[in-house]
Amino acid sequence: MMLEGGMVFMSDTRTNAGLDNISTFKKMTIWENPGERVITLLSAGNLATTQAVVSELDERLKAPSERSPSLLAVPSMFQAARLVADTLREVIDRHANVGQRADSAFNATLLLGGQIAGGPMRLFLIYPEGNFIEAGGDTPFFQTGEIKYGRPILVRAYDPKMTFAEAMTLLLVSFDSTVKANLTVGLPFDYHCYEKDGLKIGHTGRVQQDDPYFQSVSQGWGNALKDALEQQPKWTFDDAQRNPEDKG
Amino acid sequence: MMLEGGMVFMSDTRTNAGLDNISTFKKMTIWENPGERVITLLSAGNLATTQAVVSELDERLKAPSERSPSLLAVPSMFQAARLVADTLREVIDRHANVGQRADSAFNATLLLGGQIAGGPMRLFLIYPEGNFIEAGGDTPFFQTGEIKYGRPILVRAYDPKMTFAEAMTLLLVSFDSTVKANLTVGLPFDYHCYEKDGLKIGHTGRVQQDDPYFQSVSQGWGNALKDALEQQPKWTFDDAQRNPEDKG
Repeated sequence: MMLEGGMVFMSDTRTNAGLDNISTFKKMTIWENPGERVITLLSAGNLATTQAVVSELDERLKAPSERSPSLLAVPSMFQAARLVADTLREVIDRHANVGQRADSAFNATLLLGGQIAGGPMRLFLIYPEGNFIEAGGDTPFFQTGEIKYGRPILVRAYDPKMTFAEAMTLLLVSFDSTVKANLTVGLPFDYHCYEKDGLKIGHTGRVQQDDPYFQSVSQGWGNALKDALEQQPKWTFDDAQRNPEDKG
Repeated sequence: MMLEGGMVFMSDTRTNAGLDNISTFKKMTIWENPGERVITLLSAGNLATTQAVVSELDERLKAPSERSPSLLAVPSMFQAARLVADTLREVIDRHANVGQRADSAFNATLLLGGQIAGGPMRLFLIYPEGNFIEAGGDTPFFQTGEIKYGRPILVRAYDPKMTFAEAMTLLLVSFDSTVKANLTVGLPFDYHCYEKDGLKIGHTGRVQQDDPYFQSVSQGWGNALKDALEQQPKWTFDDAQRNPEDKG
């Protein structure tokens, strides 16, 4: 999520291969060269694919070549996105073209955001096909994975002038809406709040299931929604426009 | 949705065959024998299939046979559900097994609810395979179609003691969340509020795009959500439990 004052990243840690095979894995990776660049990657989709992408990117840090520069060497966030996108497509191609199981099960979608000295903060959504889109004024945040349950609150309450603390509350409410409805998303949540032009890793941490703040928001939000509903104007059935023949 | 005082049905009217082929069709059908039974059917999925099911059910009203009694003749809501489910499966089978295009595109899911004199109100969700589940205390409402966006508010704000008017507000907010996020759901919305033991059609009507009440709720809800968010406790980054090494 892009804010005027920075960027906020949050990811869950639930991974599953069927409902009876659930594990916890970190889906957030941060590369940092303090004072020069900070790049954050969030992943959704096949865990083997996303881990291979991260490993591949890490390998290149150790032995960068001209053909494939490392994430800490590319001169712009756009080129960082292209590098990650190419790596993602290569990893998927490698697995998808072997054997009979050449289906879309290896797919993954990535969120890449950060800032490199001299450039602005940028946020990209990278598709398994290797192309990507960038967040802008009209679409200032991206979601991947199981996005639908948590989307309405983001659409309505997002404000670019939010503080990090307000954005954290909003994201936790949004994630909580999804957790309440879908087993494939679960706590703990990892977060990273990058401060604009800071060029260093900002607040990072993990919100656990028993986090007192999360507990209070999760419980309080249901009551807040009920209150909000009660504040709405009252529906009446006597509006002739809706049905002149209402038999009720 | 089941309430202590009755049942509330609401359906949108958007149908599409691709995003450039959008039409408005009523997805709610009500059968009534005043003083004896009221049965309401909501449909989601392939329009040809759901219309064929309704036509088939209507045909049987005119010429009921022993093998397939009519909806106005079956002695219980359970048998009504079985009749509709069998009809649905037959219609899907008929189209799916012809020609090359034997895929799931003919599928449809139905919601059937109502009351027959002497029995309780019952609500069923009928799958394209012809089986069905019933709403109970744990699952007092069903959604079909594009359910995810509108689900969090239902999960959190539903209360069986709601009045019809409160339920209408809740359902409009839930539908509005989906409309804001998804092109395949659109106004106008049809509704039917069946009063428990009334055994006659209750309040019915259609909420149009320009309905003043819907407009005010749609606009007011965004602000109400923002207010609710502001009322939540404030997030602080200084909780050592989350990350003892927080560098922020």
